[in-house]
Amino acid sequence: MNILAIESSAKAASVALCRDEFLVAESYQNSGLTHSSTLMPMCEALLRNCGVALEDVDLIAVANGPGSFTGLRIGIATAKGVAWPGELPCAGVSTLEAMAWNLCGLAEGVVCCAMDARRNQVYNALFQLTENGPLRLTEDRAIALEQLFGDEEARKNIRFVVGDGAQMCYDYGKELGLDLRLVPQNLRYQHAYGVARCALEQARAGKTVSGGALAANYLRLSQAERERLAKESAKKRETQNHATEREK
Amino acid sequence: MNILAIESSAKAASVALCRDEFLVAESYQNSGLTHSSTLMPMCEALLRNCGVALEDVDLIAVANGPGSFTGLRIGIATAKGVAWPGELPCAGVSTLEAMAWNLCGLAEGVVCCAMDARRNQVYNALFQLTENGPLRLTEDRAIALEQLFGDEEARKNIRFVVGDGAQMCYDYGKELGLDLRLVPQNLRYQHAYGVARCALEQARAGKTVSGGALAANYLRLSQAERERLAKESAKKRETQNHATEREK
Repeated sequence: MNILAIESSAKAASVALCRDEFLVAESYQNSGLTHSSTLMPMCEALLRNCGVALEDVDLIAVANGPGSFTGLRIGIATAKGVAWPGELPCAGVSTLEAMAWNLCGLAEGVVCCAMDARRNQVYNALFQLTENGPLRLTEDRAIALEQLFGDEEARKNIRFVVGDGAQMCYDYGKELGLDLRLVPQNLRYQHAYGVARCALEQARAGKTVSGGALAANYLRLSQAERERLAKESAKKRETQNHATEREK
Repeated sequence: MNILAIESSAKAASVALCRDEFLVAESYQNSGLTHSSTLMPMCEALLRNCGVALEDVDLIAVANGPGSFTGLRIGIATAKGVAWPGELPCAGVSTLEAMAWNLCGLAEGVVCCAMDARRNQVYNALFQLTENGPLRLTEDRAIALEQLFGDEEARKNIRFVVGDGAQMCYDYGKELGLDLRLVPQNLRYQHAYGVARCALEQARAGKTVSGGALAANYLRLSQAERERLAKESAKKRETQNHATEREK
């Protein structure tokens, strides 16, 4: 099965072509340039350089969150666009689970896959790394570092930290005297290989979707939505206050 | 320090741009296409996509052997060509040591970095993986699997096998009842990141060379050279036999 995988959930962008587990090609970029201009050319160049046509691709895989709202939208839009002409099956996978897949068979123990979610939170999930894949120990979630390391099981078991939130977790854990390890730079951030690997499992379980059904999993509301809700609830309170004052 | 690293010692070709240990971009291809047509465009696209000019590169790194004779020549010729206009410093690094660097900080124990050297031999070297880099346990060498696993220390200690000779080693070790682990597909073959990482250590130790001084380390004679030597020694024997017959 030829899988074209797309990862643009944070600063690093990458695309990979896999034949089942085998990595045929990967293009990775963490240069700070915008995904909207780099991602589609990366896909196109990757396939062309391998002599593989889009018709030969069997599955489009994309990291669908959590992550940067704009990054996820660009990735998912690209996946939808590429899947559309041939009505290719798609798989949207957890950004955090895909990161864990990149480490399986190498590192051992529990990994905390973490992304900086701003507002003093980290998107994160814990996985037990095994040779056959990551075993999920928690849901994907957006919580504070205090909450993450407040859990005794987590504090005791986490051995590796990976992702653009890894350094935050490492620094916080070090303050607590924990023996954490930062995943080295070649696998510190998201790589599309893990997205392909995760999608392959979904495909084997018959869990693919159409491009149209791909959707982002933001885990929390966007800033614009939060501001709109805050404005609406402020307005509601104001109206109620006016009403209360009139009643007095 | 900006490092442009080139890996074309076997079937997979890759180029990476690193800022010290940080991986800025990597392009990896294992599609069976010829390096002579893919490698130079890969370098050029990598730098262009990162908005980095050749003048901004401080070090050219290349895997200089062991490996495929043609692959090494293409890699080294590319490195020399790229280094030439700006007289950039270069570092030629062991293909096997570079592979070990890719695993450091993740896997633990002794790794056997192995490449299929044909003629029932493997190019290989053993390294102890540590968080700070690989500790070399043997020289790079071309030996038979019998000899590799004939050594009791090796048989006892090797935990991971990596490279295009990994499967051969794994199968042979399994016959012996050894508990070996194949490095997973995302890091099974050579990646230019390890080449950059290894070269960074050389640069820090002040051990860079000019492009002109880069040379391949084949570890053994090429087929053409072996055939020439065999022919010459056969001719010598024939001449000696004629002389002996005349003397009778």
